[in-house]
Amino acid sequence: MTGPATGKPDRSRRPPTLEDVARAAGVSTATVSRSLNAPERVRAETRMAVEAAVRDLGYTPNFGGQALASNRTNTIGAIIPTMENAIFARALQALQETLTESRVTLLVATSHYDPAREEAQIRALIARGVDGLALIGSQRTAAADALLETRGIPFVILWSAPSETPHPAIGFDNARAAAELTAQVLARGHRRIAMISGPLAHNDRAQARLAGVRETLCATGLELAPGDLQECPYTLADGEVAAAALLGRAEPPTAIICGNDVLAAGALRAARRLGVDVPGALSVTGFDDIELATAVHPPLATIRVPHRGMGEAAGACLMDWIDSGRRPVSRLLPTEFVARESLGPVE
Amino acid sequence: MTGPATGKPDRSRRPPTLEDVARAAGVSTATVSRSLNAPERVRAETRMAVEAAVRDLGYTPNFGGQALASNRTNTIGAIIPTMENAIFARALQALQETLTESRVTLLVATSHYDPAREEAQIRALIARGVDGLALIGSQRTAAADALLETRGIPFVILWSAPSETPHPAIGFDNARAAAELTAQVLARGHRRIAMISGPLAHNDRAQARLAGVRETLCATGLELAPGDLQECPYTLADGEVAAAALLGRAEPPTAIICGNDVLAAGALRAARRLGVDVPGALSVTGFDDIELATAVHPPLATIRVPHRGMGEAAGACLMDWIDSGRRPVSRLLPTEFVARESLGPVE
Repeated sequence: MTGPATGKPDRSRRPPTLEDVARAAGVSTATVSRSLNAPERVRAETRMAVEAAVRDLGYTPNFGGQALASNRTNTIGAIIPTMENAIFARALQALQETLTESRVTLLVATSHYDPAREEAQIRALIARGVDGLALIGSQRTAAADALLETRGIPFVILWSAPSETPHPAIGFDNARAAAELTAQVLARGHRRIAMISGPLAHNDRAQARLAGVRETLCATGLELAPGDLQECPYTLADGEVAAAALLGRAEPPTAIICGNDVLAAGALRAARRLGVDVPGALSVTGFDDIELATAVHPPLATIRVPHRGMGEAAGACLMDWIDSGRRPVSRLLPTEFVARESLGPVE
Repeated sequence: MTGPATGKPDRSRRPPTLEDVARAAGVSTATVSRSLNAPERVRAETRMAVEAAVRDLGYTPNFGGQALASNRTNTIGAIIPTMENAIFARALQALQETLTESRVTLLVATSHYDPAREEAQIRALIARGVDGLALIGSQRTAAADALLETRGIPFVILWSAPSETPHPAIGFDNARAAAELTAQVLARGHRRIAMISGPLAHNDRAQARLAGVRETLCATGLELAPGDLQECPYTLADGEVAAAALLGRAEPPTAIICGNDVLAAGALRAARRLGVDVPGALSVTGFDDIELATAVHPPLATIRVPHRGMGEAAGACLMDWIDSGRRPVSRLLPTEFVARESLGPVE
């Protein structure tokens, strides 16, 4: 086994073919195919000879050939806004586990909440020949929507309620979950309530969570005045700055509802720095229930999002769409309010 | 713009070609090529007509054709052990930013610390025609090593010291960083020191960190007895269980050195649950300096790993290798001990 460990990668050398493997293993190409695709139908000895030849030659199934033969590349693409925190990680892991059962590889790209970048990545993944796509949220560029529609690529939208989009969605009701959370805050006697939201532009999840909070307050005769709402990127440092601004007001809030757990962890840090006791003098809530929610102290009252449920259902639904050609039915998964120490009664 | 919003994706319909775009825009195929590849050389009006046709038809540069023409797919693959926590996220973001400048897309797959899965993903990414790969650590299956060598794919190893591997590496010295951290713990008077390590199998980073701790203790006449070492997966819950076991011993440690920040956050949670004051009765250290390190309380003394530096250097080095054909020189980047409240003097 030799190869150019140094110097220009030998791109002139053609990749090994099925024929090369057959020749090296001393069997027919049909036997190589069977050995790779239905190993149980091949004698162990033959299979081992083929496997050795595959290894020695560095054979990988030819993308073009395989795609031509089956119209498939056995690759699913996912584009998520960020890997910076674990928000999307558990759903992706469940998606990957589901796809692995079908011997499909998941490739992930990140858009950094930038619709232009998401569009470029949709384009790149389609050009790489993915069989299907998992996307986050319902709002993207018109060109991306048009591309998806024109090319007829199976794709499923995660994190948004099916009512938010005409496309197949496996998601949850962000507005209703935020309304439930707000009702829990109100039930503990809070009336001076502020919110730290993630960026609202192109982000139906953040918009729906804000709407859920706003409407629930309205229904009680309260309102989210402009000064009660801080909008910032989903980072701990930004959440800390936003919370410090809210706590520095003449009449500071007794509860801060945060757009996700990362912002809430930042709010806890601001409270600690300013000597504000949580939950004694201030309640803080999160959204997502990622691991961070119970790593911080006090642990965060939050909304548990169906991370694994979305990932598993998305995998099953994409594979079914690809296999059957039938567009899947959207699914609305439940969320759950999780009471924890960061939310207490108003003093 | 119409398309099959429902029903079987129209896979019989061939993807739009360069010729289709030229026809729709009323220009030659050469003009379409120029418009896409050197837009500054085309009149604005022509460029807009081509862009409109590209959008309307859902044209994406043909993978095969482009690959044949330039021998490139403008895609780099990265395989990381996990997305579950943010350990690899910042390096990936820096890598992606660097690649975006060269209009290259980064596709990420996760191996879940499983060498067989990593091998399958290397195979899949090579089959999808990536121009290069970024991999974590120096230990993989012999078949994966052979495949990389045989196919001559440019690839760079992150997170490991160049001395750990014959391949190009952009990394840091895990052993030396762990030794420095241990010296800081010893300097504060600690003598009963325990360690919680991540999984050691196939993980040169965890092995090197353990070696660094062990050797530094040895040099002071101390040792890491079998009962002083807990090995567990890199999760908060596992770190909590491991720390509780260490704290439950007859002579509990006064300092716990953790293999990363996630395990250390778990150790803090165990200490809180058991009523053990940090850093009064117990010091805890992390490794990585991810955002979690300052989200928890007390904030974690840790080793700052060159996340962004590795990502940027890996991107530059891969692009240079692909462009020039010259195998890059490995680079050893510095780490830094960060003193924070979780590490205090022994009482």
